[in-house]
Amino acid sequence: MKTAFQNLLYPKLDFLKGKKLLLATSGGIDSMVLVDLLLKENFEIAIAHCNFQLRGIESFEDQKFIENFAQKNNIPVFITQFDTKAFAEDYKLSTQVAARELRYNWFYELLETENFDYILTAHHADDNLETFLINLSRGTGIEGLTGIPQQNEKIIRPLLAFSRNEIEAYANENQIEWREDSSNASDKYLRNKVRHHIVPLLKDLNPGFLSAFQKTQDYLQQTQGMAEDAAIMVYQQVAQEANDEIHFNLKKLKKLSNYHSYLYQWLSEFGFSAWKDIYALADSQSGKQVFSPEFRLVKNRDFLILSPLKNLKETSEFLINENTTDVNFPIKLSFSKVDSVIETSNKTIFTDVDKLKFPLILRRWNEGDVFEPFGMDGKSKKVSKFFKDEKFSLAEKEKTWLLCSGNKIIWIVGKRADERFKVSETTKNILQIALS
Amino acid sequence: MKTAFQNLLYPKLDFLKGKKLLLATSGGIDSMVLVDLLLKENFEIAIAHCNFQLRGIESFEDQKFIENFAQKNNIPVFITQFDTKAFAEDYKLSTQVAARELRYNWFYELLETENFDYILTAHHADDNLETFLINLSRGTGIEGLTGIPQQNEKIIRPLLAFSRNEIEAYANENQIEWREDSSNASDKYLRNKVRHHIVPLLKDLNPGFLSAFQKTQDYLQQTQGMAEDAAIMVYQQVAQEANDEIHFNLKKLKKLSNYHSYLYQWLSEFGFSAWKDIYALADSQSGKQVFSPEFRLVKNRDFLILSPLKNLKETSEFLINENTTDVNFPIKLSFSKVDSVIETSNKTIFTDVDKLKFPLILRRWNEGDVFEPFGMDGKSKKVSKFFKDEKFSLAEKEKTWLLCSGNKIIWIVGKRADERFKVSETTKNILQIALS
Repeated sequence: MKTAFQNLLYPKLDFLKGKKLLLATSGGIDSMVLVDLLLKENFEIAIAHCNFQLRGIESFEDQKFIENFAQKNNIPVFITQFDTKAFAEDYKLSTQVAARELRYNWFYELLETENFDYILTAHHADDNLETFLINLSRGTGIEGLTGIPQQNEKIIRPLLAFSRNEIEAYANENQIEWREDSSNASDKYLRNKVRHHIVPLLKDLNPGFLSAFQKTQDYLQQTQGMAEDAAIMVYQQVAQEANDEIHFNLKKLKKLSNYHSYLYQWLSEFGFSAWKDIYALADSQSGKQVFSPEFRLVKNRDFLILSPLKNLKETSEFLINENTTDVNFPIKLSFSKVDSVIETSNKTIFTDVDKLKFPLILRRWNEGDVFEPFGMDGKSKKVSKFFKDEKFSLAEKEKTWLLCSGNKIIWIVGKRADERFKVSETTKNILQIALS
Repeated sequence: MKTAFQNLLYPKLDFLKGKKLLLATSGGIDSMVLVDLLLKENFEIAIAHCNFQLRGIESFEDQKFIENFAQKNNIPVFITQFDTKAFAEDYKLSTQVAARELRYNWFYELLETENFDYILTAHHADDNLETFLINLSRGTGIEGLTGIPQQNEKIIRPLLAFSRNEIEAYANENQIEWREDSSNASDKYLRNKVRHHIVPLLKDLNPGFLSAFQKTQDYLQQTQGMAEDAAIMVYQQVAQEANDEIHFNLKKLKKLSNYHSYLYQWLSEFGFSAWKDIYALADSQSGKQVFSPEFRLVKNRDFLILSPLKNLKETSEFLINENTTDVNFPIKLSFSKVDSVIETSNKTIFTDVDKLKFPLILRRWNEGDVFEPFGMDGKSKKVSKFFKDEKFSLAEKEKTWLLCSGNKIIWIVGKRADERFKVSETTKNILQIALS
């Protein structure tokens, strides 16, 4: 006789009848229950097991357990072994994220090559609740609270509406064999605290807690979807894409009282994190900029312009404002007002502030560039000739930066200063500029 | 000497210096601490206390305590008494919601009449966390998770970034006198469980839990704001307002994969709750309708039309589809296929289904309406003449509904059937229509 649990579950899975299903099977209680439930109703299933090699001999015993189970029940089985630790190190991922990445990539590969219709996983309602609470404990955006969806493209989670209790009860009644779930130890520690101490108290507040929680997650998913819609709609109104750059129209954007939310939404995927600086940028003078590891955001009159650094390094101009003390990109420069010229070197020059036109410009050299080399009595020289005379390699030339005041060169950075900006007897304010 | 708590708090309150502040003061620890903190820095404050008369003599002792405190400290004080229970009953509100309504209305009244700049309340970070968990336990949308904001128009909550522990520590160090907070007993029961059992475990997961939680709520507020923007932007694209009605263009709306979210967002404020029916409406035939206590949503070709019932009662047509068994609005009718004519009465008629044109129309009578009264051998009569002959009052006429097939009257409901739709010897299918 079928249990109430089965009578609730099976009608929901009608659409999987006749489909080729691949079950992600760790060997833990949840996945072994799902396998049993599907076997009992003659679904067309195969099982896939990843050996992440994270717990030595235990990992191989899990694998063996799955292989035996598949053989005994005459089910097709796919097994793979990952060097999870190495993968995590190579891609600078946490072990957990690495394992997830490897697992789902392989599942999708099998889906493709073996012509499965769907991948099934055994996540249940308590998994979502535990993850919600763990993310909450660390601080999170809405994406950390919405939970794994019941269906996401080709991945289906048939047990997501059911509780851990229901699954454990089924396992006991049906004498399901299983092995303790494998998972990252520190995550397990946190998860166990949540599972054994916090979740029971929450369920105690309201006997219908878990189903109320599922409704909450449904609502949050709806809200998240609408927020994403808004991000797209506002983007279409204020952003223009051109030459790998995105130009955000600040006049239009700032009509929205919550425009910070939009900047956050758009820019976080480009690796930005200095939000205070970015929000200040919207109100700052032209030339101010904020960097993420691979992108630059620069204020340019009524626009914020997002550019990939790889482009910038070759083609762009970097503006340096009057009160700047440190520039960290594309090269490291420091600026300080000093009382007297100390010691000029390749790496340090001294200039007459009152001759400079701000913002200064830091840029690559062009074919036509001309300067007046320091100590040459005001004779001008082509930059290309200077390179030739100094026997610069092509690589050296390409690496060279020019610091300019308007269209005049102040410094071929690290190589030679210009005569026109040098400190003289009439100089009142001295600016020391150093390369580090 | 100032504590770390004070050193963190006061700089944030600089903008309140020189302003006239009204402090909502229950007499509980939180509000008495806030009063003390502001007195010590010479802010210009007055205190306002509501006696909700919910706990008999205790409520009056709270009031007395506040009056004495104000006198001793020479602070202006405003006291009011509410018949909270009666108000809650009159407006069908929970005691808690009634108390909040009364409280804030009165505060805003004082703000106006006494020229205060701001209302201050003593809500703190744990209040927000507890409310979050209580709402989570019951199931909630994002609005139940975002928390009270630090500033909401004229209301400011200076302690919102601080924990209950910090406030209690300050109360102890400064020997603050206070009285146990009053609150709804059943809410208190739930809140105490959350406060004493669940919150400590969550804080135990992460020592920085509370500040991580505040960031989470900030992010959720941002997401909520964006979702609200989306609701407005999509509304502008798909909705047209005319004559108290809103017409939603389904062709445009259904281009969005998540259009259910938008219908939910727009329609919940009109009191709708039958979401499954509403979502089905978008795919159903013209004439189908769903009701909220004061509104109707009807499918009409490519539109969903929202109308206030007060309008409909006077002017609109209600469509009744072929398979309808019960109509509940604007009057109660039931439809059933029967094998033979049982007993015709004012309240029950029998019609030949095959003569009816669906959807049937239920509408008010018009001046030119003509029908063929049952039993009059096919002679036609003006409905207005019928009313006159039957000596109907104006009120009776206005209350009368006509059930029609196309432009032919089937029944002056509850008064007289029409000859043309009666059951005859050739009738194959009989429809019984009853008014209840």
